Amino acid sequence: MNTTERYEQLAAELAEVGRRFYERGWVLGTSGNLSAAVATRPLELCITPTGARKGALNASDFLLLDARGRVRLPPKGKPSAETPLHMEIMNSRAAGSVLHTHSVWSTILSARHLGDKGLAITGYEMLKGLEGVHTHEHREWIPIVENDQDMPRLTARVHDVLQTEPAAHAFLISGHGLYTWGRTIAEAERHVEILEFLLEAQGRR
Amino acid sequence: MNTTERYEQLAAELAEVGRRFYERGWVLGTSGNLSAAVATRPLELCITPTGARKGALNASDFLLLDARGRVRLPPKGKPSAETPLHMEIMNSRAAGSVLHTHSVWSTILSARHLGDKGLAITGYEMLKGLEGVHTHEHREWIPIVENDQDMPRLTARVHDVLQTEPAAHAFLISGHGLYTWGRTIAEAERHVEILEFLLEAQGRR
Amino acid sequence: MNTTERYEQLAAELAEVGRRFYERGWVLGTSGNLSAAVATRPLELCITPTGARKGALNASDFLLLDARGRVRLPPKGKPSAETPLHMEIMNSRAAGSVLHTHSVWSTILSARHLGDKGLAITGYEMLKGLEGVHTHEHREWIPIVENDQDMPRLTARVHDVLQTEPAAHAFLISGHGLYTWGRTIAEAERHVEILEFLLEAQGRR
Amino acid sequence: MNTTERYEQLAAELAEVGRRFYERGWVLGTSGNLSAAVATRPLELCITPTGARKGALNASDFLLLDARGRVRLPPKGKPSAETPLHMEIMNSRAAGSVLHTHSVWSTILSARHLGDKGLAITGYEMLKGLEGVHTHEHREWIPIVENDQDMPRLTARVHDVLQTEPAAHAFLISGHGLYTWGRTIAEAERHVEILEFLLEAQGRR
Repeated sequence: MNTTERYEQLAAELAEVGRRFYERGWVLGTSGNLSAAVATRPLELCITPTGARKGALNASDFLLLDARGRVRLPPKGKPSAETPLHMEIMNSRAAGSVLHTHSVWSTILSARHLGDKGLAITGYEMLKGLEGVHTHEHREWIPIVENDQDMPRLTARVHDVLQTEPAAHAFLISGHGLYTWGRTIAEAERHVEILEFLLEAQGRR
Repeated sequence: MNTTERYEQLAAELAEVGRRFYERGWVLGTSGNLSAAVATRPLELCITPTGARKGALNASDFLLLDARGRVRLPPKGKPSAETPLHMEIMNSRAAGSVLHTHSVWSTILSARHLGDKGLAITGYEMLKGLEGVHTHEHREWIPIVENDQDMPRLTARVHDVLQTEPAAHAFLISGHGLYTWGRTIAEAERHVEILEFLLEAQGRR
Repeated sequence: MNTTERYEQLAAELAEVGRRFYERGWVLGTSGNLSAAVATRPLELCITPTGARKGALNASDFLLLDARGRVRLPPKGKPSAETPLHMEIMNSRAAGSVLHTHSVWSTILSARHLGDKGLAITGYEMLKGLEGVHTHEHREWIPIVENDQDMPRLTARVHDVLQTEPAAHAFLISGHGLYTWGRTIAEAERHVEILEFLLEAQGRR
Repeated sequence: MNTTERYEQLAAELAEVGRRFYERGWVLGTSGNLSAAVATRPLELCITPTGARKGALNASDFLLLDARGRVRLPPKGKPSAETPLHMEIMNSRAAGSVLHTHSVWSTILSARHLGDKGLAITGYEMLKGLEGVHTHEHREWIPIVENDQDMPRLTARVHDVLQTEPAAHAFLISGHGLYTWGRTIAEAERHVEILEFLLEAQGRR
């Protein structure tokens, strides 16, 4: 399978993920963005376009970017403004897919715990769905990065958090929702479902 | 595309919007109403009929009204009682579409903050989905208009709020839900999703 | 259209109502029941069978009963145990359809306000969706009947409440959910949506 | 119908149950597991594979196990890690199906009431949907078992609870959700819907 075929297949998978997230109210408005690595070394990225409704994406709406973030397909496409965060995560974590959701509960908790720079979640069996976690006694620290409209500065903050919290499976941006990732789209989607569940349970307690 | 074709196309789009809002519980009973401008100068309006279930509309259920609110199509159609509010917003804001939802959270907040005549929302990335907003630091003031069964009086209040709050993207009517608008149906629907999200997040905090 | 045709058509409509209520979580387990009058004077009733899942009904699952509650179709069918309540409401209110839902919020409020024998709802525009209500200033009193496994006794209590509260559009049974009705299935379903909305809004305040 | 046919039919039924639970958010991530007895004396079990998404199962994803938990079909399948709990319940309760959900409310209540080793639910009409219960005055005690990654130890605890609480229709594992069962898949699914409803109502009060 060549690059274009792989890009088309990943885009079709991500479009389905967008539909499922939309139904749960996790990517309302034009919030959220979804990506997958088409190639590594050098990185090639399939990502949602800017401003798109995530519940009604077609595979052909997705962009193919090269390692410097330049658009290769389609010719006039404009990628999500948060593309640098996706690239930072893919590079720092060797992730094959990065998914960003924007749910009510993740937004509320990202504000409630901003002063603590994160929140710890422990004691839930659901934690075992996170890659490499084998017991509910695991303590998952979800760092919270302060939001910023200066994308290079926000990317630098995300870079720092990924370095200082090498065990983290995800982070929140304050008032802005959840970022998580996985080796595959399926693994990243599993992480979204698990973390959104845990944040809702934590928020309702 | 002539007026009738444009009306039919907009009606079909609005019917889909109604289905999506119904699934989320934002237009239960016969609540909510949906409109789009078929023409401007003079205004021609496509709008939901009175008393209709918004989750099961066909394009042919929608009405075509002229600038004075007279029914042009279908011959015996009866438009939504809140048609004057739609026309007022279209005239004051040069909107191409006006959407009114009636969710649990918008209803609760419209009562909770009525004494303040509105509520401010700030600090959320989601705000950037509102047209012309570029930072989460934006402070969106959502005015609350006191409900009234006297439609000319309620329309006058809405007119006043639209003049005194020229930056507002929406308003609430107390115990009655959300009005928002956009240049297109898609923009107005995006505003509904964003504002309903923000009101739910604000309500649950 | 003869009686059998009318029964088949009403059963098909009620099956769709059941699907919609099930999706919203208002008739989980085998809770809830749905009926419509096939004929009046003497009353003939189309009603859900006992113990059925309301999200997966076929028209042929419904029963046709005569005015004394005897099963006419299908030969070995067993009607919902709450059939006497449906008949009582149809007789007292000249209703064409009676719908009983069993949502989380109606259950919670029916317990919270049992000591008051009911709860008042006022100030909501949504109230105008109730038949004959023309202003949000309307005060809807929803009586609460104490639950009882003795069906004749419970039916007598319902009879009393329907007499003493002639303006009521609905009542709750404590720990047991909502009963409402309408001249048609569509009107009764509209009443369910409106009342479930109002009870949720009241419960979350 | 021979064993393979029966296994295929039960697997197809369980796949549909998984889809319905997934839509309600009761089996997010890879949480939850579903089983049915294909034969008794000796027991043969149809059960979800380990790590599967419960909203997108095909009948062919399910495993057929013998009474000692050895995989008979498909050759390289790996069953859910919680298979011993399913077998324990089937043996102790002569159940034909065991269903485990992992909802937000069951998780919250399993933590809130862990110190009491269970929670009592009474006064709800919905209780009558539990097999053998005939009145809302029934008091259902839902025992809470402390979670443990040592499966033999957890199985022994479940065994003890099933012996000491012979009337229980279900139990919770702390931070881990709900286990219930029935003679058939339909009965077990009914029990899930009823118990998830009751736990949500109890949690929101």
